[in-house]
Amino acid sequence: MRMYDIIKKKRDNGVLEYTEIKFFIDGYVDGSIPDYQAAAFLMAVFIQGMSPHETVMLTRCMRESGEQVNLSAIPGIKVDKHSTGGVGDKTSLVLAPIVAAAGIPVAKMSGRGLGHTGGTIDKLESIPGFKPELTAEEFIDSVRRIGVAIIGQTGNIAPGDKKLYALRDVTATIDNIPLIASSIMSKKLAAGADGILLDVKVGSGAFMKETKDALELARTMVHIGNSSGKRTMAVISDMSQPLGNAVGNALEVREAIDTIKGEGPEDFYGLCRELGAAMLILGEKASDWGQGRRMIDGIVTSGRAVSKFREFIKNQGGDPDVIEYPDRILPKSKEQVIVRAESHGYITSLDAEKIGIGAMLLGAGRSKKEDVIDPAVGLLMNKKIGMPVRKGQAIATLHINSRANLEQAVELIRSAVTVAEGPVHKPVLIKEIVQ
Amino acid sequence: MRMYDIIKKKRDNGVLEYTEIKFFIDGYVDGSIPDYQAAAFLMAVFIQGMSPHETVMLTRCMRESGEQVNLSAIPGIKVDKHSTGGVGDKTSLVLAPIVAAAGIPVAKMSGRGLGHTGGTIDKLESIPGFKPELTAEEFIDSVRRIGVAIIGQTGNIAPGDKKLYALRDVTATIDNIPLIASSIMSKKLAAGADGILLDVKVGSGAFMKETKDALELARTMVHIGNSSGKRTMAVISDMSQPLGNAVGNALEVREAIDTIKGEGPEDFYGLCRELGAAMLILGEKASDWGQGRRMIDGIVTSGRAVSKFREFIKNQGGDPDVIEYPDRILPKSKEQVIVRAESHGYITSLDAEKIGIGAMLLGAGRSKKEDVIDPAVGLLMNKKIGMPVRKGQAIATLHINSRANLEQAVELIRSAVTVAEGPVHKPVLIKEIVQ
Repeated sequence: MRMYDIIKKKRDNGVLEYTEIKFFIDGYVDGSIPDYQAAAFLMAVFIQGMSPHETVMLTRCMRESGEQVNLSAIPGIKVDKHSTGGVGDKTSLVLAPIVAAAGIPVAKMSGRGLGHTGGTIDKLESIPGFKPELTAEEFIDSVRRIGVAIIGQTGNIAPGDKKLYALRDVTATIDNIPLIASSIMSKKLAAGADGILLDVKVGSGAFMKETKDALELARTMVHIGNSSGKRTMAVISDMSQPLGNAVGNALEVREAIDTIKGEGPEDFYGLCRELGAAMLILGEKASDWGQGRRMIDGIVTSGRAVSKFREFIKNQGGDPDVIEYPDRILPKSKEQVIVRAESHGYITSLDAEKIGIGAMLLGAGRSKKEDVIDPAVGLLMNKKIGMPVRKGQAIATLHINSRANLEQAVELIRSAVTVAEGPVHKPVLIKEIVQ
Repeated sequence: MRMYDIIKKKRDNGVLEYTEIKFFIDGYVDGSIPDYQAAAFLMAVFIQGMSPHETVMLTRCMRESGEQVNLSAIPGIKVDKHSTGGVGDKTSLVLAPIVAAAGIPVAKMSGRGLGHTGGTIDKLESIPGFKPELTAEEFIDSVRRIGVAIIGQTGNIAPGDKKLYALRDVTATIDNIPLIASSIMSKKLAAGADGILLDVKVGSGAFMKETKDALELARTMVHIGNSSGKRTMAVISDMSQPLGNAVGNALEVREAIDTIKGEGPEDFYGLCRELGAAMLILGEKASDWGQGRRMIDGIVTSGRAVSKFREFIKNQGGDPDVIEYPDRILPKSKEQVIVRAESHGYITSLDAEKIGIGAMLLGAGRSKKEDVIDPAVGLLMNKKIGMPVRKGQAIATLHINSRANLEQAVELIRSAVTVAEGPVHKPVLIKEIVQ
């Protein structure tokens, strides 16, 4: 078998066999296939596409290119959740303790943030003492004892995807559905859960700007998951504005704690409730959405979610007093700057990508992997889409530790806001469910 | 400007600007753009195509990436000729002295053979003493004195094309008309002639198997040439069988000498006559095809072609007695093997690619650049398409120096021949003219 012929076949819109895809991934990982052949192949895939079966095979080969987590020592149906990335998306912080409290083991590996979206591990690290590094034994043992652990990406998970992703990033072959879907699913499948819930974001702050593209991505990933023997569901959720009010690590932890206590913003809790219900269905704890939602509400109002969150934080070295005294325990910025409305009317749009980049410029995120983030900085939205506003009222409150980039960030956030005369509806939070 | 954006633009079927193409070629030549980005770009070009204007710009950038030959010290209209490569194609050996005898300066750079087609320099080197290496001064001076010189590729001609071609060769991006046309024309334009005649081969032994593809390539190249200020014409000629009877270096020189003397095979002389007439038109020595053909015939029958060939060979160190005593001077093989007809009938096809590879296997050509060729070996066709044949009659006579690969070569040549009952027409030699 020659890589040349595999490139040629895809170039001419042919359908690849499992053995051909495997030859490519294995050869690319071991270095026998050079970057330039992989780049030509990726561009051919980008333009000509891949069939659902090819996409399943590509996912399988990337998944099998490295270690696969074995969670069989943990009894019960393990359900994992993945978000395609959004601004202010702290759902994992809330769902992990809620779902664990419902009896579904949460053995989760999470990533760090890059670009305009944050990462769960960065957020958790703003809690003093929290350790995202556990050994494999500690990880499994934690989940067995208290039902929940969240750690950073460990080991050699899907190295084929990692190497390919880096190449896609410099060859303009990122935004392609079969490639995105197989990249996400190869890592999720290798992470060892029995069921997978996908939160596919759509809107100005998401990778997918249009519902139809988000839906196609969701369907592709659900097909991959189900074809690989894991029960998989996807929710298409709104990312036309930041989720909740907080953007930035400590600020988001604070909002997550409020939400676990039942005092979170309506839109954010609403999404957590739907995603939680879906996870209960996947974990066979609820038989339908109605029952799932009621169970989530019960876990929150009864305080079981807060207790579980306390156990989780404490188990990984974090200061559990953060729950009662977030203001005292979480890092705080030195200064606040308010971005005000320039006219009367209603908020009609809040471009989430611009707001995410604004927060990143303040130091809440990384523009490149090596950047160091400041957990204290970020912003709180005072207004969301659909709210009335008067000229001079606060739209966003920036929490800053340095005035470097401030002007640029304010400018960007200002440009993210549109105010119009007539009232508009709030965006619908859940657009579609794919199962 | 970023290469990423240029790849993305072409990926999305956009039309590139001159500055973008120049950024790519210059960056690829100086190493600031890596192979993997060039490979992704080439695949995008392959699948999405290039407009005629983009193709002209790509050619210009590759031409300008290296040295350009300056022939202005030679008075008169210099006309160059290029063949896309065929089996038994020794037209340059015949045309150079004829056209020079007509008063058109021939300052030609030629290549060596690779794969199933031969190269002019390899053929000339089978003449004892012939030197294809002249200094720039010797080259110009030779053309000024005797009107003709043929040398190997010198200097740093179109390095952008050279580097890109090597990458195309390993990324399945060779057979694409804008890329082929710009590759050929960048070198031809850098070679400094005022007019360019292209002999685009079509048929089993050519790169282009179908007339419509050959025509598209010819039109693209003629457009590039004319848009670059050089008068350019193209002839689409048959390569469904070897041209003339001889395939192999010394054997082809022998046939070229016969042809210069007016004793060559009919098909081969016919093509030389048409190509020569076109060159006389481009060089403004003939005003139409009829006059051009008559002039070519006159130059051959008067012996002026032979005299010019003698001067040319002698000037570059070759033994001019090769003209009178080719049998004595040219290298000869030790042994001959005859491939015979297996049935009665008419020759209906003689797959030129298979015959070319057969000759290559005997040692007449190179399968890779490093291979050493044997000037004495090759084959002579005893039959051509349309001729009647009886079982046991010779179809081809192989001239060999070793029995290694003999069986494989005979097998291949035998498989190239089809004999059928009914008579067939000879192939039409000139399919189209593009100007």
